[in-house]
Amino acid sequence: MFSVTILGNNSALPAYGRFPTAQVVTLNEQAFLIDCGEGTQIQMSKYKIRRSKINHIFISHLHGDHYFGLVGLITSMGLLGRENDLHLYAPAPLKQILDLQFTVADTRLPFTLNFHALENEGLIVDDKKFTVECFKTQHRIECWGFIIREKKQPRKINKEKIKEYTIPSAYYERLKNGDDYETKDGNIIKNEILTIANTPARSYAFCADTIYDESLIDKVANVSLLYHETTYLKDLEDRATDRFHSTTIQAASIAKNANVSKLLIGHFSSKYEQLDIFEQEAKEVFFNTQLAIDGVTFLIK
Amino acid sequence: MFSVTILGNNSALPAYGRFPTAQVVTLNEQAFLIDCGEGTQIQMSKYKIRRSKINHIFISHLHGDHYFGLVGLITSMGLLGRENDLHLYAPAPLKQILDLQFTVADTRLPFTLNFHALENEGLIVDDKKFTVECFKTQHRIECWGFIIREKKQPRKINKEKIKEYTIPSAYYERLKNGDDYETKDGNIIKNEILTIANTPARSYAFCADTIYDESLIDKVANVSLLYHETTYLKDLEDRATDRFHSTTIQAASIAKNANVSKLLIGHFSSKYEQLDIFEQEAKEVFFNTQLAIDGVTFLIK
Repeated sequence: MFSVTILGNNSALPAYGRFPTAQVVTLNEQAFLIDCGEGTQIQMSKYKIRRSKINHIFISHLHGDHYFGLVGLITSMGLLGRENDLHLYAPAPLKQILDLQFTVADTRLPFTLNFHALENEGLIVDDKKFTVECFKTQHRIECWGFIIREKKQPRKINKEKIKEYTIPSAYYERLKNGDDYETKDGNIIKNEILTIANTPARSYAFCADTIYDESLIDKVANVSLLYHETTYLKDLEDRATDRFHSTTIQAASIAKNANVSKLLIGHFSSKYEQLDIFEQEAKEVFFNTQLAIDGVTFLIK
Repeated sequence: MFSVTILGNNSALPAYGRFPTAQVVTLNEQAFLIDCGEGTQIQMSKYKIRRSKINHIFISHLHGDHYFGLVGLITSMGLLGRENDLHLYAPAPLKQILDLQFTVADTRLPFTLNFHALENEGLIVDDKKFTVECFKTQHRIECWGFIIREKKQPRKINKEKIKEYTIPSAYYERLKNGDDYETKDGNIIKNEILTIANTPARSYAFCADTIYDESLIDKVANVSLLYHETTYLKDLEDRATDRFHSTTIQAASIAKNANVSKLLIGHFSSKYEQLDIFEQEAKEVFFNTQLAIDGVTFLIK
């Protein structure tokens, strides 16, 4: 199970029942929160996402529509008696903002909050089963995107062939990792004969807020699912550029050139009550596009 | 028109669809916001309260469930192009919290935000038509209650009597303010003969978060509507005391002894999904009690 659930898709402020940016990525038993606009914990209750499942939070930048719900969420985790460590990856000034609010309220969290200031592009989490990388996006203030990748899955043993070639079980682990087998008399049996490919490793890239930026193409190349903001429709390209945001066509162009499997678009301006046209415009350039709608879960495959 | 609309009645964290504390008091063309828990601006949209109408905000204390929605609301007011001054009355450390978040986001508000740190009990707003006073409550951290009072209404001219005694119109204003009339030959015509009493001045007291505290009785004496927290039912009096909160019976006892006209109770613990019993318990001591339910407007009379 690898999926992303949208908790908020609106830019700048809540409007038409749409909440500001927040997404929960689920990877098997792990849950990651990316951005945390005001009301995120309310959306979590609504969509039955347990706060206690979240062990990693990633904040792209310190515009309020991407983090004003964080201090409330963390405070609630404390009130609910959380004990597990929480890891928070964010621009450095967020630590002072949180500390100040906890101090003033005399809040003592019953768990350890590990704050990791984002400093350099690259690997920020390296788990047995997944990695998380961060990369810079171009916005009005310091801003980061994130890529969550499954680690490459081991190959599966081909039970028939194993029997046929009488491979000793002690050798199975090496086969799963891709090694060939050498028989006692020096013959090589290729790994491809003895094993079957597993599902390929999947990946999700979250491009945060960004101006149209072709350097993103390399950064998110070949991901399974790309989230790219589309604050504006294509006719407002100048305004998008002026405000360091993107249009439908620009997001779709990044998706196409990065050869991603699927595109998810969001961060819609409050100018727009109807969203259908966002999808229509993006599909002109990149057909496999969907709207990031609050409450909807998208499988990453 | 003098009323209070409840935007949140839950304590500590959002639960069962109940939002944390926020109330909008409407007094004719004025709107006042008291406390601003996370999601207040979302509730304002839901209940059709225009952000632009609010010129005064009062924050009782710096526990998150009473102010985490404030930075988002103020940011949105800026994004929506507000120009009118906004007056914010709150414990002093809130200024630093807001300033830090605005600085980090490079937010420049297009209106003047006047921050008034609460320091002494007494008058904090003195308008032609109303006053606002603050008073201390006993909670775990610095905490303030507020009383909004209409100013005493001028008396109304009794048109028949004015004609009968041929009072010159230049004297009407003094009659409205309660003066007697002295005729040319030195006779005194009492004001009560020439004028009719207007509706008495109404008042709303918001007691914030507080332990059971009999010193509140004098502070809120005779108000038209008293809001007093009831975090717990009567069987959890010890827990209430321990956490500087109140029970149903305690709130109702303050209302009764303060001789208020009506009691509104709220700030319910997330322990409780059903709220009916709060009203039942309070009514045992003070019958004219209602639950502060999200989205409901209560007339102050």
